Amino acid sequence: MANLNYHILSELETMQYIKKIPGLFSETAQLICKEMGDGNLNLVFRITEQDSSEKSVIIKQALPYARVVGESWPLTLDRARIESEALMMQNGICPGSVPKVYHHDKELALTVMEDLSTHIIMRKGLIARNRYPYFAKHIGAFLARTLFLTSDLALDPECKKQKVMQFINPEMCRITEDLVFTDPYYDAKTNQFNPLIKAVVEEIWGHDRLKLEITKLKEGFLTRTQALIHGDFHTGSIMVTEKDTKVIDPEFAFYGPMGFDIGAVIANLLLNYCSHEGHTLIQKERIEYQDYLLNTVEKIWTIFEEEFRTLWKEKARDSYVSLLGYEDDYLLRLLQDSLGYAGCEMMRRVVGLAHVPDLESINDPKLRAKGERLALVIGQQLVLERETAGKISDLTSLIRKVRNREADQD
Amino acid sequence: MANLNYHILSELETMQYIKKIPGLFSETAQLICKEMGDGNLNLVFRITEQDSSEKSVIIKQALPYARVVGESWPLTLDRARIESEALMMQNGICPGSVPKVYHHDKELALTVMEDLSTHIIMRKGLIARNRYPYFAKHIGAFLARTLFLTSDLALDPECKKQKVMQFINPEMCRITEDLVFTDPYYDAKTNQFNPLIKAVVEEIWGHDRLKLEITKLKEGFLTRTQALIHGDFHTGSIMVTEKDTKVIDPEFAFYGPMGFDIGAVIANLLLNYCSHEGHTLIQKERIEYQDYLLNTVEKIWTIFEEEFRTLWKEKARDSYVSLLGYEDDYLLRLLQDSLGYAGCEMMRRVVGLAHVPDLESINDPKLRAKGERLALVIGQQLVLERETAGKISDLTSLIRKVRNREADQD
Repeated sequence: MANLNYHILSELETMQYIKKIPGLFSETAQLICKEMGDGNLNLVFRITEQDSSEKSVIIKQALPYARVVGESWPLTLDRARIESEALMMQNGICPGSVPKVYHHDKELALTVMEDLSTHIIMRKGLIARNRYPYFAKHIGAFLARTLFLTSDLALDPECKKQKVMQFINPEMCRITEDLVFTDPYYDAKTNQFNPLIKAVVEEIWGHDRLKLEITKLKEGFLTRTQALIHGDFHTGSIMVTEKDTKVIDPEFAFYGPMGFDIGAVIANLLLNYCSHEGHTLIQKERIEYQDYLLNTVEKIWTIFEEEFRTLWKEKARDSYVSLLGYEDDYLLRLLQDSLGYAGCEMMRRVVGLAHVPDLESINDPKLRAKGERLALVIGQQLVLERETAGKISDLTSLIRKVRNREADQD
Repeated sequence: MANLNYHILSELETMQYIKKIPGLFSETAQLICKEMGDGNLNLVFRITEQDSSEKSVIIKQALPYARVVGESWPLTLDRARIESEALMMQNGICPGSVPKVYHHDKELALTVMEDLSTHIIMRKGLIARNRYPYFAKHIGAFLARTLFLTSDLALDPECKKQKVMQFINPEMCRITEDLVFTDPYYDAKTNQFNPLIKAVVEEIWGHDRLKLEITKLKEGFLTRTQALIHGDFHTGSIMVTEKDTKVIDPEFAFYGPMGFDIGAVIANLLLNYCSHEGHTLIQKERIEYQDYLLNTVEKIWTIFEEEFRTLWKEKARDSYVSLLGYEDDYLLRLLQDSLGYAGCEMMRRVVGLAHVPDLESINDPKLRAKGERLALVIGQQLVLERETAGKISDLTSLIRKVRNREADQD
């Protein structure tokens, strides 16, 4: 259905618009407005009151197209509704974990929300080798609460099916289906990768069992309505201060497999891990930071599991509470799924269209190839061996083993 | 949303109504109308023209309540829309396999469709020990076509997600969730069973691994949008003549696991198999008919698999066609799922609320218990051992083995 009232707002219109939203700024306030998005998918305005640097909000407006796949192509504005509704649901389930939504305008595909100018993008923090002592705790709890409490484990099944319908998100899912699960595994036009790793990429394209396992993981992404997942949970969708963590940008949210979110955050920590193979660093510094990253991965899962088990005790529907063995079985399958999806994410960020700044910021292609090659080896192992994992330390041991083996070969 | 124009039609109104549908009867036709439903869920009118016994139609109107769980409770009229839309989709995919829909009236929750008065309910035919030489062929092909062609294997993923939304069916799914996967596995009020099998039922209630496996199958029913399934595919939802087979009543249709439909038809053939342990029959007759049933089960799967593989070759989306091993892996998992769901269906039809006439028609409770006990043993084995099956003859061998062991114990 055409949305005739939609138009792209100018900075001036934005300032007029915001004054009409009750409770934010007075009619006479002197506002400053700055567009700060990258312009590919959305406009992002920051609006500040001139005499009060404390008072500011973000207006995010979806554009009716996406240039993310290299050419102009129309993209549903409905993602702005999905994003605002997901943010509100996540805030209800895990208060303070996401920016507050002040207002959503369906026709303009626009959301007014909390400004997080005191926070930085987690990925930037990791590239700068910062440490965030509360990050694992916040993210582990966020994952446990948002996944458990939107699943059939906690919700009445009729209510859950209404939410499945509310968050059906076909166009955004297709981007993931293509860019994560399909294109990187053959010589697709959308792919772009460092010419120095061509041999490894071609090995992947010829690896039948790997492609079979990827397709089974894709099948799960296409067909499993396990929980309301964020859908794009990389370290660029997380904003941090030393003490606070906020999850942003859930425009890919839909009912999918829990392990896709857990896997995404693990994979992006591991991509950062791999990048330090290529950055010029003294060895001690590299080792310490890589250890910090692996410890963070372990801690995220450990806290996730603890919180998930607490929720199971306190909030699971009756028929699941007393059932012997289901909780352990569920968590084991979830760990294995998460490793599989982590493997997919690692490979596609090296071979596919969308790369990560962690690796891209290594200027020398030879040094970058070291990190990229390690990411591809780890990614493959995770997909192929996921069903042998029984606990999170199986993952971190595997990473250490693979890293040392690869380093010996250099 | 309240539907203010809905009211329950009388026979007289029905005859006035049908004359307004173009292409069926003339304004002056002398019609005969007979209500022939069981009145629990729906009204079913047959309307015939007085001078032409050839010319007849069925009008099915949903009632706004269901007495199936023992008390009056409101039930969505939306199931009439689901049923008519599923019938039309199935007829498009597998022409002639379902009654033709002539007209659907959303407000009255009413569908005008082809009269199948020359057909009988398959279950009645099986109780009378009839044989239907085309049944396995028709049902195997129906399953393959309806399941494959509504899945992500064949459909564009965006189009498939629209259909998932179109067929979300929370209230009807809840009936299945409760009556098939939950209530039979504890001492629920809805259960009813032959007092003579109480010991076996209590063994089931205390069997932790069995209950774990049932819950995993229930999880699949709750969370897997694999294909548009019929959702209630027992032998009472199939009408036959010697040469023709029609699938009726898809009011439980939704996007769920393929194996649930395949399992339901297999289970209902096996429940009939078990019933012959209790019916008074000369041995040769029993053995021959039971063999016929097992051969039918094998043939359904074999034809299903053949047709599914042909569709894979001809209609699968590009990325699946060339992928080594996925087709075999998919079909193996599907066979195992089907056996698991068959096991659930067999047990719930003996322990739960809704029993099958195949067994219920055995008047002597002791003789009936023989068949019921066999059904429970087979049902448990199917759930517990499903992942050891590699081919359909593993199922039929298991049935023969279990049957002979149980008979020896008598």
